[in-house]
Amino acid sequence: MTTVVQKFGGTSVGDVTKIKRVAKKIKRKMDDGQKVVTVVSAMGKSTDKLVELANDITDSPDPREMDMLLTTGEQVTISLVVMALKELGVDAVSLTGWQAGIETEDVHQDARITDIKAENVQKHLDEGKAVLVAGFQGISASGNITTLGRGGSDTTAVALAAALEAETCSIYTDVTGVFTADPRYVKKARKLDSIAYDEMLELANLGAGVLHPRAVEFAKNYNVSLIVRSSMEDVEGTLVEEEATMEQNLVVRGLAFEENVTKITIERLPNRYDTMSVLFTLLAEKGINVDIIIQQMTADHGLNVSFSIDTANLGKALDIIHDNKAELCYSTVRHESSLAKVSIVGSGMVSNPGVAANMFKVLAEQEVAIKMVSTSEIAVSAVVPEETMVKAVEALHAYFDLDAKEKEKIEAVKG
Amino acid sequence: MTTVVQKFGGTSVGDVTKIKRVAKKIKRKMDDGQKVVTVVSAMGKSTDKLVELANDITDSPDPREMDMLLTTGEQVTISLVVMALKELGVDAVSLTGWQAGIETEDVHQDARITDIKAENVQKHLDEGKAVLVAGFQGISASGNITTLGRGGSDTTAVALAAALEAETCSIYTDVTGVFTADPRYVKKARKLDSIAYDEMLELANLGAGVLHPRAVEFAKNYNVSLIVRSSMEDVEGTLVEEEATMEQNLVVRGLAFEENVTKITIERLPNRYDTMSVLFTLLAEKGINVDIIIQQMTADHGLNVSFSIDTANLGKALDIIHDNKAELCYSTVRHESSLAKVSIVGSGMVSNPGVAANMFKVLAEQEVAIKMVSTSEIAVSAVVPEETMVKAVEALHAYFDLDAKEKEKIEAVKG
Repeated sequence: MTTVVQKFGGTSVGDVTKIKRVAKKIKRKMDDGQKVVTVVSAMGKSTDKLVELANDITDSPDPREMDMLLTTGEQVTISLVVMALKELGVDAVSLTGWQAGIETEDVHQDARITDIKAENVQKHLDEGKAVLVAGFQGISASGNITTLGRGGSDTTAVALAAALEAETCSIYTDVTGVFTADPRYVKKARKLDSIAYDEMLELANLGAGVLHPRAVEFAKNYNVSLIVRSSMEDVEGTLVEEEATMEQNLVVRGLAFEENVTKITIERLPNRYDTMSVLFTLLAEKGINVDIIIQQMTADHGLNVSFSIDTANLGKALDIIHDNKAELCYSTVRHESSLAKVSIVGSGMVSNPGVAANMFKVLAEQEVAIKMVSTSEIAVSAVVPEETMVKAVEALHAYFDLDAKEKEKIEAVKG
Repeated sequence: MTTVVQKFGGTSVGDVTKIKRVAKKIKRKMDDGQKVVTVVSAMGKSTDKLVELANDITDSPDPREMDMLLTTGEQVTISLVVMALKELGVDAVSLTGWQAGIETEDVHQDARITDIKAENVQKHLDEGKAVLVAGFQGISASGNITTLGRGGSDTTAVALAAALEAETCSIYTDVTGVFTADPRYVKKARKLDSIAYDEMLELANLGAGVLHPRAVEFAKNYNVSLIVRSSMEDVEGTLVEEEATMEQNLVVRGLAFEENVTKITIERLPNRYDTMSVLFTLLAEKGINVDIIIQQMTADHGLNVSFSIDTANLGKALDIIHDNKAELCYSTVRHESSLAKVSIVGSGMVSNPGVAANMFKVLAEQEVAIKMVSTSEIAVSAVVPEETMVKAVEALHAYFDLDAKEKEKIEAVKG
């Protein structure tokens, strides 16, 4: 008897009708003779309502208490799904994060899973029950309720699949799978049958948004077969695994892109060993996520440093830089907003020199200005003006042979 | 430094404004140098909304899952109150039932507390924090989330007060204290300064509704000083303690009454040792609560049995009796609805013979028909026609010297 783990997000359990549909899906899998563990998120907008309540009370809610507050959302869903299953005559049991043995760091709002004590889940599975686990939440060594941060339910599902040695971990979502590019922007985007962990990781980190990077990382580390599929339609999804099947020998597997990028340039910093560490520690301490970093030496041996951040953090970042001018000893600071980041991802790049050069050639043909560049083993990213983003992505999508054929296109649109 | 426990019900934490008010009350107590543990219920109608969701899914929700669902309500409240306290600069921490060490039987929806492991609460108190505990909930030995049934938050508060050896346990409610009779019915009802546990227990059991009987029982067993007071007004409440101060040497301390009583009479049951046990076991098994029971022998040595139940259970009770006619061997069954129960309560009765006789005399003067009678050490109850209830209660209230004097009355109305 095989064990499978599946996860349904907030929109898939958004109301009573949808909850009943999830229960039917679980029953079908059990009728097929599988042991089924299901991880669910909070219902639709219920988390937003709880956040609103907190904001009515204070501008800076205590992180521990936010976790206490928000974890009630998933607890509501698990109990309702079990009720729906019992109504269908299926024996089932709901477990909160702590009841399911999801142990985390003693950090609030963004804790990492440290261990899964899956005995309780396993016991209920062995008794023939469907097991419903509240996603996104865990318990710390000191007995506090914690949450895993954005996309945390994905991580819960993958971690449970690893601990239970499940055959697959299906992430049900509102898209039919992982696409070569976001189909809301790129009309010719095509659904992938499979993708490698590392490629998915780059796509996830680059803002493709289908799966949380931490979940993909977990899946890679524990070799969990991850399937991204639609909760609404019964179509094949995308399999995320160690080595993706070589679809048409693709060098580039997919494109990722994100708007609201700002580039900050600090000029003439002192050329000292600790300049970079001082600067980026100051930013990190205030919770500002820095993406691409470029360092350049000036003719007179000073340093120019550019880095990109989410435009939402611009004000905060500039304050920090100005407040610490004495310590940083720079001459000027400039910034450029309304930028976007465009990335090509594919594990085939490693063995194909010149992929970056080809990307720059395509951008040049489209008259897209390149503001910053960053490369990894399997990805190349370019920061470009926001208004050229879609044009750039569509040209790259076509150049790297990702455009859907006529038949595929129809399928992708249906998805 | 003294420790106090206080409990706020659903209406006292019904919205964000009220939650902030509760936080201010807690701060004031802490500023006075007290260690404060506060038990709260779910916000206003939030429990009803959860029950509605469950009912949309199934007609008979699983009890374990109902507990899983409903306990989220108190969890929301504790986190919000702590946020409000932190906004006031008060260090505070919220604890769910299991985090506060509230251990219960492995029963759902109506579990009894078996033990309180108060170390965690005590630790946070010793660190100078306000401690917020989710009422109504606990954890069973097998790790399931349980609830304590109706009025469960009162019990949580009293049990914590006992475990922490708190100086007092204040139950904040929407009335200013315990009254000689329900002031919504009896205009001359008067607030009591104090009342004995046993008297409160009789009043609670007889439907006075201010405190849950189980909470009073707990307070009596552990000698917890219980105070019932208003969450809206800053006035003295009613102290529930071992021996109530002898206010004006009252024989009768208060009146209780409830409507929707039905009397069922089964005639000519066989006169066997097990007749009563068979009949009432059948009813108990279906969850029908029987109140007063009267057994009478007929001239030819058969048995007539009358008992009173809540009118809501009439159909179910009659079905059981009819379905088991073969086993019960009775001749006929009759019932009378639209009845009410009126009770006088006072520990002074024990040493005052003739109190019951006086009660009957008053009822006779008012031409109130007595359908059934039941007595205990400190209470006498009579079942009477529903339409005579208020008349009967007002006459008894006056006869037993409970009517408020002019000055007292004004105070009671203000309450």
